[in-house]
Amino acid sequence: MAATSTAEVSYEAEQWLDGFNAALRAQDTSAVLSLLDPACFWRDLIALTWNIITVEGRDAVAAMLDATLDSAQLREVVLAEPAARGPDGTVEAWLQFRTRAGRGLGHVRLRDGAAVTVLTALRALDGHEERRGPRRPLGVEHGAIRDRRSWLERRSEEAAALGRDVQPEVLVIGGGQAGIVLGARLRQLDVATVVVDRHPRPGDQWRRRYKSLCLHDPVWMDHLPYLPFPDTWPVFAPKDRIADWLELYVQVMDIDYWGSTIARAARFDRSSERWDVTLEREGEVVRLRPRQLVLATGVSGRPNVPVLPGQERFAGEQHHSSAHPGADGYAGRRAVVIGSNNSAFDICAALWERGADVTMVQRSSTHVVRSETARDIIFKRLYSEEAVAAGIDADRADLISASLPYRLAAGVHRAIYDQVREHDREFYARLEGAGFKHDFGPDGTGMSMKFLRRASGYYIDVGAAELVIDGRIRLVQGRVARLAEEAVVMEDGTALPADLVVYATGYGPMSEWVAELISPEVASRVGPIWGLGSGTERDPGPWEGELRNLWKPTAQPGLWIHAGNLALVRHYSLYLALQLKARAAGIPTSVYSPGGPAGLDFNSNV
Amino acid sequence: MAATSTAEVSYEAEQWLDGFNAALRAQDTSAVLSLLDPACFWRDLIALTWNIITVEGRDAVAAMLDATLDSAQLREVVLAEPAARGPDGTVEAWLQFRTRAGRGLGHVRLRDGAAVTVLTALRALDGHEERRGPRRPLGVEHGAIRDRRSWLERRSEEAAALGRDVQPEVLVIGGGQAGIVLGARLRQLDVATVVVDRHPRPGDQWRRRYKSLCLHDPVWMDHLPYLPFPDTWPVFAPKDRIADWLELYVQVMDIDYWGSTIARAARFDRSSERWDVTLEREGEVVRLRPRQLVLATGVSGRPNVPVLPGQERFAGEQHHSSAHPGADGYAGRRAVVIGSNNSAFDICAALWERGADVTMVQRSSTHVVRSETARDIIFKRLYSEEAVAAGIDADRADLISASLPYRLAAGVHRAIYDQVREHDREFYARLEGAGFKHDFGPDGTGMSMKFLRRASGYYIDVGAAELVIDGRIRLVQGRVARLAEEAVVMEDGTALPADLVVYATGYGPMSEWVAELISPEVASRVGPIWGLGSGTERDPGPWEGELRNLWKPTAQPGLWIHAGNLALVRHYSLYLALQLKARAAGIPTSVYSPGGPAGLDFNSNV
Repeated sequence: MAATSTAEVSYEAEQWLDGFNAALRAQDTSAVLSLLDPACFWRDLIALTWNIITVEGRDAVAAMLDATLDSAQLREVVLAEPAARGPDGTVEAWLQFRTRAGRGLGHVRLRDGAAVTVLTALRALDGHEERRGPRRPLGVEHGAIRDRRSWLERRSEEAAALGRDVQPEVLVIGGGQAGIVLGARLRQLDVATVVVDRHPRPGDQWRRRYKSLCLHDPVWMDHLPYLPFPDTWPVFAPKDRIADWLELYVQVMDIDYWGSTIARAARFDRSSERWDVTLEREGEVVRLRPRQLVLATGVSGRPNVPVLPGQERFAGEQHHSSAHPGADGYAGRRAVVIGSNNSAFDICAALWERGADVTMVQRSSTHVVRSETARDIIFKRLYSEEAVAAGIDADRADLISASLPYRLAAGVHRAIYDQVREHDREFYARLEGAGFKHDFGPDGTGMSMKFLRRASGYYIDVGAAELVIDGRIRLVQGRVARLAEEAVVMEDGTALPADLVVYATGYGPMSEWVAELISPEVASRVGPIWGLGSGTERDPGPWEGELRNLWKPTAQPGLWIHAGNLALVRHYSLYLALQLKARAAGIPTSVYSPGGPAGLDFNSNV
Repeated sequence: MAATSTAEVSYEAEQWLDGFNAALRAQDTSAVLSLLDPACFWRDLIALTWNIITVEGRDAVAAMLDATLDSAQLREVVLAEPAARGPDGTVEAWLQFRTRAGRGLGHVRLRDGAAVTVLTALRALDGHEERRGPRRPLGVEHGAIRDRRSWLERRSEEAAALGRDVQPEVLVIGGGQAGIVLGARLRQLDVATVVVDRHPRPGDQWRRRYKSLCLHDPVWMDHLPYLPFPDTWPVFAPKDRIADWLELYVQVMDIDYWGSTIARAARFDRSSERWDVTLEREGEVVRLRPRQLVLATGVSGRPNVPVLPGQERFAGEQHHSSAHPGADGYAGRRAVVIGSNNSAFDICAALWERGADVTMVQRSSTHVVRSETARDIIFKRLYSEEAVAAGIDADRADLISASLPYRLAAGVHRAIYDQVREHDREFYARLEGAGFKHDFGPDGTGMSMKFLRRASGYYIDVGAAELVIDGRIRLVQGRVARLAEEAVVMEDGTALPADLVVYATGYGPMSEWVAELISPEVASRVGPIWGLGSGTERDPGPWEGELRNLWKPTAQPGLWIHAGNLALVRHYSLYLALQLKARAAGIPTSVYSPGGPAGLDFNSNV
């Protein structure tokens, strides 16, 4: 019978750590391997590898350790808190450790004295710690200082000089949540950064969307770093609240944010190891020469607008969902919305609520999960009031999520969505009874894995499913053949009368932006962005085990990709910021890539 | 020997609580008294008395209990956490309790089984809880709702209607930190409130002050409710940062804030039990009819500008410190600053830093405490990074402060300032050696009691004292007789050449605003505002044991006064908001005043 008390479990973890630290001190790969299960997963977030990778199995771990133990100097691995027995019977332990560059947090799951999963995450660089808590700035300068300048004066001068007299170290293109959060982290790390966005104000990316939009993730998933929402914040924030929050966050966190700025072109200059970026800032051309370029324009590329015969003859209004102004003005009008994912449902519902006659065209199967069910079954353990009461704040929840290798995540999610299916059996029966094509993903792993694999293919139901079920939103299956003057005509010849056509048909891949901004050659060299390589629909292999090209060195020196929902950008912006800081500070960053030559440092200045 | 383990100490407290609860259940005043030390202090924050009072000694406690036990129904008093042995050897216990109206927190210090201090603080009204944490709003409305309105639309309409189609329940005059924090609390309690201020934007009260101004209280004292500063916030925030924070706080907390609005007159209409308030809002006259009127214009009244012969002939610039634009433009000029408190020192230092020739005129003795010393000795226990690490957040620190009756506070502070005196012995010797008249208050209780008694008479030294010590700021003692064309002339005939005269001569009492806005008769009936009645300079008796007229019913129905530094307004705004909510909700609020007739409800609608 396994030990159960905290003390016994911690003792077991400490025994393991004794051996682990001894093996690390000796830089003895085989001694480390002897402490790992043969099928062990080791996930490293820039602690050993200056990369974000999961290596699977003893051979891959051995290759990683051989290449990194000497350079990384992982050491002094200790329990961060008492160990605990996990739900699967393993001993779970949170760890603290040191490396050559700084300090980190880790996690290990032990079964029969061998690690089945290991997480190592670098969290701070020695000598470059964030100025938080005990390290916070004093604010006032005590003493008598001739020609003292106030904080406002210094801040204004600094902002005016950046990009004019002083080149930024980092340029972030895209000022949505991803760009803003990264800007905040880089400010705390003293890395001169400019965040640019084509919209005038921070938050406009949300503000300008259709007016019924609310976050689909609950508040506990959505906190930004440093400044959590107040506990009066709604569970599902309306888009204008999020917009305003992002705007004030930019101000509070002293982010150098250039609105109304369009990135026209970027070219990496091998000799100077700087980018040459052409921006159009409020109509004026500005050229910047940053060392590092971060694309944070969202997972999505250009709007996918299907090309259909007859579009030019259509007498009504037609636009992509990203350009949909909201339902006002469409009362009594006939709307056809092509698509059946989140945006399609949200837009159909708002149009119905406003009194339009609405038809949804479903082209392929969609996964639907009810918002209440998502909250109660999917998110509750990590992101909920109950989790907060159990001491799981957003950062801890993120680390718990990160401790589970993506290969194993599918199984965990399949079990969760089995519960969802059972919980809402009657709902799904009615939805399918109404003719809606529904799936739980290719392997029953639901929304969570669809998000990671393809960032599409689902709807979090906040009420519109019932409109489809009872026919208030008309549902039509099949593919659109063409547009007539006043109708959408399906392949089977059915004509759907229409004054408005909304193409809720998704977006192209993010690589399109890379090709457009830099070059098709670089886009092709960098390869796919997002997706795990699961080999499922829209996520072709090979298996990568991490989100591709996100938050880590790419095949293009100085080019970084940053994207994700609020939870992902909150967590992974830390590792991206630390990588950028390390390069700015001249800290050696030998990047290890599985499969690639060991120690290849293809994205370092050092 | 007294018990020392937590369990033993908690047992002692629980024994006491058993008797206390039994006595409360029986509504038996003498049984309660038998559990109190004869010299017991009982501080009540609206839990028993719907008043903020400290009653001292058994007789006064008996009178309070006789008048309130039946109406308040204090009951179910239990330990909120294990009890602890206090520094003075008493058993200290944090309590939770219920009353007829709601739930509260309490604190008791026991010596030999008898209470020497009791605190009872109402913290929430049953059925009117704040929408926080598990009670937070959902944000999105699930389902399909015809003609749904977005959050932004509803919020905009609500704001537009308030004061036009809908009369506010509460009007707060003064939109500095006090008014803003109260507005936030009333919003959470669903009390329709308008906060007005004569400046255009929230934070202008800080923004428009001299540019070197920083907070003199460290960050841990300064948090606003609901939305604490991020842990990157500076220890002593520059005024523009605080200004910006207040502005965004107004937005995030959905406060109906009317800038550029001057309150011209207010009259209480006995028959309707509403105020008739005349405002000038952006030049337009607006009349409001709130039930409750809160003055939050600051402890200070009108600037005190001394009337001196020759002022009209003075050729240079002269203004009160409140109108001082900052030191820019005064390089090389001869400045005479009259006064020797915080503003005088700050202004002198900034003028010197800018290159002016500066003279400070000290008219009477001032207490000086070095900022570092204040931080290390005075604030550290409750408001510091160390306190946070020990689990003392701002709310807990506030409650700890509140648990100490003001009568006893003087002794505690005297001991603290004895440490300060010893710590900075050499500094004070040099300061006095430079001719500066220095004191630690009439009874050696330093800045903390000066603040509570008179809100003046001290300087928190951030560097200017050294300028006075070494003569870079010239120090002149005595009274000013008159102004000449280019000089300030002292009573002893000394002429101080001057291009600029700054009157850092303080402010009149807050009652001046009451007289001006409402009437001299009401100002006189309400009586002094601020001060404890300590009988020391500028705080004449009789002893009141609380800050006079602050956050509690005044002698004028429907009139409330709200003021203080950030720490005080953070904490006491809760009790003020609960009193206003109780009246709005028709909850019986029988006010007990010591000395007054029991149960007199002179400020309730019920």
